[in-house]
Amino acid sequence: MSAKPSLPKGTRDFGPAEMARRNFIFRHIRETFVTFGFMPLETPAMENLEVLTGKYGDEGDTLLYRILDSGDFLKNTTSEDYDGGASRLSPLIAGKGLKYDLTVPFARYTVMNQHEITLPFKRYQIQPVWRADRPQRGRYREFYQCDADVIGTDSLLCEAEIIVMINTVFEKLGITDYEIKINHRRLLKGITGYIGADGMENEFCVAIDKLDKIGRQKVYEEMNDRGISSSATSRLDPFMELSGSNQVKLDRLAEYFQGVPDGLQGIGELREVLALAEKSGADLSKVALDITLARGLSYYTGTIFEVKVNNVSIGSVSGGGRYDDLTGVFGLPGMSGVGFSFGVDRIYDVMTELDLFPAATSAFTAALVITFDAASWDHGIGVVARLRKAGISAELYPEAARPRKQFAYADKKNIPYTVIIGENERQEGTLTIKNMLSGNQETLQRDQAIEKLRKDILA
Amino acid sequence: MSAKPSLPKGTRDFGPAEMARRNFIFRHIRETFVTFGFMPLETPAMENLEVLTGKYGDEGDTLLYRILDSGDFLKNTTSEDYDGGASRLSPLIAGKGLKYDLTVPFARYTVMNQHEITLPFKRYQIQPVWRADRPQRGRYREFYQCDADVIGTDSLLCEAEIIVMINTVFEKLGITDYEIKINHRRLLKGITGYIGADGMENEFCVAIDKLDKIGRQKVYEEMNDRGISSSATSRLDPFMELSGSNQVKLDRLAEYFQGVPDGLQGIGELREVLALAEKSGADLSKVALDITLARGLSYYTGTIFEVKVNNVSIGSVSGGGRYDDLTGVFGLPGMSGVGFSFGVDRIYDVMTELDLFPAATSAFTAALVITFDAASWDHGIGVVARLRKAGISAELYPEAARPRKQFAYADKKNIPYTVIIGENERQEGTLTIKNMLSGNQETLQRDQAIEKLRKDILA
Repeated sequence: MSAKPSLPKGTRDFGPAEMARRNFIFRHIRETFVTFGFMPLETPAMENLEVLTGKYGDEGDTLLYRILDSGDFLKNTTSEDYDGGASRLSPLIAGKGLKYDLTVPFARYTVMNQHEITLPFKRYQIQPVWRADRPQRGRYREFYQCDADVIGTDSLLCEAEIIVMINTVFEKLGITDYEIKINHRRLLKGITGYIGADGMENEFCVAIDKLDKIGRQKVYEEMNDRGISSSATSRLDPFMELSGSNQVKLDRLAEYFQGVPDGLQGIGELREVLALAEKSGADLSKVALDITLARGLSYYTGTIFEVKVNNVSIGSVSGGGRYDDLTGVFGLPGMSGVGFSFGVDRIYDVMTELDLFPAATSAFTAALVITFDAASWDHGIGVVARLRKAGISAELYPEAARPRKQFAYADKKNIPYTVIIGENERQEGTLTIKNMLSGNQETLQRDQAIEKLRKDILA
Repeated sequence: MSAKPSLPKGTRDFGPAEMARRNFIFRHIRETFVTFGFMPLETPAMENLEVLTGKYGDEGDTLLYRILDSGDFLKNTTSEDYDGGASRLSPLIAGKGLKYDLTVPFARYTVMNQHEITLPFKRYQIQPVWRADRPQRGRYREFYQCDADVIGTDSLLCEAEIIVMINTVFEKLGITDYEIKINHRRLLKGITGYIGADGMENEFCVAIDKLDKIGRQKVYEEMNDRGISSSATSRLDPFMELSGSNQVKLDRLAEYFQGVPDGLQGIGELREVLALAEKSGADLSKVALDITLARGLSYYTGTIFEVKVNNVSIGSVSGGGRYDDLTGVFGLPGMSGVGFSFGVDRIYDVMTELDLFPAATSAFTAALVITFDAASWDHGIGVVARLRKAGISAELYPEAARPRKQFAYADKKNIPYTVIIGENERQEGTLTIKNMLSGNQETLQRDQAIEKLRKDILA
């Protein structure tokens, strides 16, 4: 019973210091979502398995966490089911699973509440998801997603506003050196059409996704292995070498795509997205058309996004795109929309690497009341109550301990101010406020002292 | 694939309207915790089963949700294990479970981080927990707990501050008619000693917990059934009939408990808690000593609390108490503390029943930009960007739709202000601000209009 307890692999506790930093990120993302008109949604951790299975591909299905039915979970099984192995037994003994992402539960919610929802529906959702993946750096089995989606409209203003939202969040977080890669599903389709590999977008995208890792030549080889002819890949060089501003790239692509309707439509939509983003006040210097960006082709159908922070060891930190059929799988076809997801865990790692968290995020209690004797401690009870009434996060050390012990507590908890009460303060109705960083201290009448402290803390 | 999707029994989605109300409750609880110096902690949903089992009694163990091991979960089993039934197979195929409460994971965290934690450690934790219970009114399989605990100190100031925290939270929520029932484990021990039923506190408490439901006579009978003699129960009447102010009750108890050290210690501690609470500014008119309050005797060892809202159909909405050994089960003995848990789901139901949610909690977007033609829509893109820069949660309807459609959208979303742009506004650089509740509208120069709107919304 008293064995050393441990955490499941790939999961984490978030103690006060991590929580402060994570909440800093969550707060700015949430505030931005709200400012842009998104409304909150939360769905349960548990979903019925039929909601989850078949939505994430075969590999995704193996990564689902399944929950054992309660009670006698074997009651509907036979020894033949046991002999049939895990894959036969599993659906008979586990009817629920932990959610794998926020998109499928959102689709389920939309279908179940389709008559109450006002379209266009803008929802955000900040919750943990679970994947039985092999844990590694930046990849956990329980992690948060921060999604915003607009459904029920084809307006490209939604894409433009996503760009402005990304600008806004990263500015608030203090991340300045980043790039929003943008592409369009129809450009990818246009390219495969242009090179004579119609209908092979999936093969094309799986390979091109590896460009950063394995280089152009290996990508071509993989395409050839996947059935795209070498005469087709030989026509890819101009696309790979596309350079210049977004306008220059789009102009060049427009030349290639004469007579390729998919390509031309993609170009037109991207031009419109960029124009609307500019009118919306976006920082377009952060936006770069990258026609090698692929992002799970099966799901997206229009503009796709990915954010990369420059000069850090971590790759993509956020991404999203437009889809034209979110809820068809649940019997409600034609619900189009566009979504974006901020990768909090990776943003956390990036901000740590770049040392971007404000020092203040490590403090919780703003003031510790420190007393020098039992009578002062007793007096301190009323003082800490007044500090809290004034909106100041405050503590009285719970016993009349030695002052050194109390100061050590303030120190360990990074408490920026102490409110000192000794015999003098008690008899004269004053308080001594000490700034623990500068060491400056000042003795004032009680109410004056509290008011000054309140202002200093808010400043 | 397109079968109607559903939610697992006992779980819920929280759409925007419910989220706004829930966040109203969470925000006030969280702010109060922070003001009182508690720091945030979050632990994973999943725990290793050995952390969870054996901590909640036999019934609790059956209510744990177990997670099927990933991959070939049968690989360490034989057909004999299958034949042995669910209870034999379960530990071999499911090594993890969903957390059942926040206390045990907190104890695990404390033990695993004992060398980094500064004592006294004040932590709060607001997270969902899971229990495979039979769903019924007010009881869900996935629900939130909001816990605050102080560990590493015996100071009764902690108990006093819990009373003030309860006052503060309920005042912020607008719940005015409630009662904080208070009792002390040693009073219960004292009573069993006094009536000659030493060592039968568990039996005593299980029975007395039902007083509200079955009445005094049936409680006595159940005690007799459980082995407490009828001569013992016959001595209980004076305790059952205890009345008057807390002081009067404590004075009366002190008379009974001459020579009953447990009882006298309980009285002394309660007197001290009440005195410290008064000095801390507590509203003691809400606090009532109730010597029939029991609350899971096996866990608590000192003062215990329970909050009941009067004149509503729901019983207890929150509770807590002092324990003297939180972490012994994980090999770290002697860690005492006191904790309190706000029952958010029940508080939500109470506030709904009493109609206490402010109307404003149903609005998210503060202003919808409504445009009368395509050119105005284009102009509106810059206007909505300026509104957001000014900190106003704002939307532009994503298409230049008919004004009626746009007004209907504002209406359905409860958006309190519209910012109207037609040809006049566009040409004159003005905006027309309409208060959707009063119907009043006013046309002002753009920046003036935005500033006025900002002030109106903040007001």
